[in-house]
Amino acid sequence: MWAALQPVGRDAHTGGYRRYAWTREDHDLREWFAGECAARGLDLTEDRMGNQWAWWGDPDAAASRGQQGIVTGSHLDSVPDGGAFDGPLGVVSGLAAIDLLQHKAATEEPGWRPGRPIGVVNFVDEEGARFGVACAGSRVITGVLDAERARSLTDADGMTMADALRRAGRDPELLGPDPDALRRIGAFVELHVEQGRGLEDLDQPLAVGTDIWPHGRWRLDFPGEANHAGTTRLADRRDAMIGLARAVLTARGAAERHGCVATVGKVAVQPGGVNAIASAATAWLDARGAEEPAVRAAVAEVAAEAERAGASVTEESWTPTTPFDPELAARLQRTLGGIPMLGTGAGHDAGILANAGIPTAMLFVRNPTGISHSPEEWAERDDCLAGVASLAMVLEDLAGVGA
Amino acid sequence: MWAALQPVGRDAHTGGYRRYAWTREDHDLREWFAGECAARGLDLTEDRMGNQWAWWGDPDAAASRGQQGIVTGSHLDSVPDGGAFDGPLGVVSGLAAIDLLQHKAATEEPGWRPGRPIGVVNFVDEEGARFGVACAGSRVITGVLDAERARSLTDADGMTMADALRRAGRDPELLGPDPDALRRIGAFVELHVEQGRGLEDLDQPLAVGTDIWPHGRWRLDFPGEANHAGTTRLADRRDAMIGLARAVLTARGAAERHGCVATVGKVAVQPGGVNAIASAATAWLDARGAEEPAVRAAVAEVAAEAERAGASVTEESWTPTTPFDPELAARLQRTLGGIPMLGTGAGHDAGILANAGIPTAMLFVRNPTGISHSPEEWAERDDCLAGVASLAMVLEDLAGVGA
Repeated sequence: MWAALQPVGRDAHTGGYRRYAWTREDHDLREWFAGECAARGLDLTEDRMGNQWAWWGDPDAAASRGQQGIVTGSHLDSVPDGGAFDGPLGVVSGLAAIDLLQHKAATEEPGWRPGRPIGVVNFVDEEGARFGVACAGSRVITGVLDAERARSLTDADGMTMADALRRAGRDPELLGPDPDALRRIGAFVELHVEQGRGLEDLDQPLAVGTDIWPHGRWRLDFPGEANHAGTTRLADRRDAMIGLARAVLTARGAAERHGCVATVGKVAVQPGGVNAIASAATAWLDARGAEEPAVRAAVAEVAAEAERAGASVTEESWTPTTPFDPELAARLQRTLGGIPMLGTGAGHDAGILANAGIPTAMLFVRNPTGISHSPEEWAERDDCLAGVASLAMVLEDLAGVGA
Repeated sequence: MWAALQPVGRDAHTGGYRRYAWTREDHDLREWFAGECAARGLDLTEDRMGNQWAWWGDPDAAASRGQQGIVTGSHLDSVPDGGAFDGPLGVVSGLAAIDLLQHKAATEEPGWRPGRPIGVVNFVDEEGARFGVACAGSRVITGVLDAERARSLTDADGMTMADALRRAGRDPELLGPDPDALRRIGAFVELHVEQGRGLEDLDQPLAVGTDIWPHGRWRLDFPGEANHAGTTRLADRRDAMIGLARAVLTARGAAERHGCVATVGKVAVQPGGVNAIASAATAWLDARGAEEPAVRAAVAEVAAEAERAGASVTEESWTPTTPFDPELAARLQRTLGGIPMLGTGAGHDAGILANAGIPTAMLFVRNPTGISHSPEEWAERDDCLAGVASLAMVLEDLAGVGA
């Protein structure tokens, strides 16, 4: 499966992936997913946001028996110049786990079949690389992200998500909460490459997730006045770049003081000429940490500094600590035997579903580089195979035995 | 003439102009210039860089009599979101001055005609907004900018100037020094809107330029390591944005300490995701001042700070103090009677020609806002008309009376 995925959206220069929602690359990835599902005899449906759900067994027939399905999966989109594993590893492992279970049903234990339907999901726009809101796919169907707001989000070229959907041949008016899609999920288990050095330090291939740190994104808009860089006295300047630079340094210092992380990774400067004083500058602040008050205190310092420079500060998203279902986590630990537990600073669709009241768990696969959102992100083949085998055991356990 | 120019390359949102070399907008401006020249019976030629020269009278025939032409003009391109006057005022005023002189030849003094050919030039790519090198049009034909280097300059999308020329239907191999074009110029007088508050403070409509401050541009490339903004400990980060922010603040502080100006108005950050630590960041530094050692000292401080952050520092351009021809300036002052003299921190094609040994002068028109490279740049109608009348007097004086 990897071979077909590898070239899609890969930048020849950086070796990183650029797979953004509703682009040509995204379309190719969705087609790839549909083809893999068809090859396994899975039934593909889409929800109101266009997330793809592939079912082995009929979840609606199961619902009439009072049963819900067991779902795994992740996302196929990437950050700019992202790695090959963040997202796709969870989708590919879900399909590979289905292969193991279908093989078992066909050969090892003829007549065996899962007691509940098993689904694999491909969530759209998890990274938020194009429209600035992470987990847009799961946020819209759970109602956390208002459909009207989602439609009006814009990308770097000023195109709204509504227009991007139309360009992709889709109807933006369909966007909205989709309780029917959510009702089919009895439990969701997302497998994901680890994004730090936790498992490498523990010398373990896999872990069960405990919680997602509180995290948020803020937009800082600094005002300025366009003017000539050669002829305007320093005293006459209102240079938006100065406030932006102070905010970047304050974010780092505040994170150190409060024991969390804070990052400015994206900026936009207008008009952007070498000899033009910046008339406007925008910095996006990402902040997270194990403790919510620490994150809030660090962001407050940056906001105060930015506001002194006349900036407006907008909270684009905020997600409190997201604990995964403790009973489900304990069940995974029992099934997999002594596997460690880990928290994470990264957001996931699993966190959005957990907040929507769906029993949710995560499985992390060791990343020997500890590097994420970069072409250097990595997972060893043996660890990936252990992840697939473990995911299959978990799905088999949760689905039970069919009649 | 203004009416036809106004909509070209104007951004509906900002009201500013985006007229970059070898774009569709640039093509439209060049066509406009050709049309205006044809309407006046001027002969249009292009040099090896595509600068447009419109002649009233035959400069090559004049050369055979041992005479050179008198040239005025400026440029039509703009910085991002630039104003309407920077560049176009000089071109429009040149054409309007020709109108006055042609009217005089036809009606006031039938039989009068200028003793030497008079030319109006439209220099390409003066602002360097697209490829990062200001005055590329005059630099290439004077040999100050090597043709091979010019061809390999890239714009924000990674397109080389060579490819941009090909896309515009031009042959990049033509680029190079053009002594034939330069030999036709006996004197060059560029009229330009003032880019500071000098004339406003003096309560005068016009001034003659004395010199252009020394100025240069430097590119600072900061290294980093792409990683996840949520999961990477502060201690493990190599965040290119931190060095960039320090450089921005150091530039301002160093300029204050050394009594010059230094500006970062353009930055580029890779990969540019909200939740991705910057793997690379580039800042362009523009520095100028009345005194060369002060500028050099300020830039050295910024470079030292950047190099501590592992950055490479590249001098993209450096132009020492450019004095305009003192005899020519004195002649303009005599012709125009008691007009003040002003220096400027802005670069101009006139400076490149002056450095190439061509007798060169400038005329500045009052800018009541003192703001430049912005839609707020302004010149009053009466001041513009005074500029045209003065420019016509200067051209008439310099061209002398024909047989």
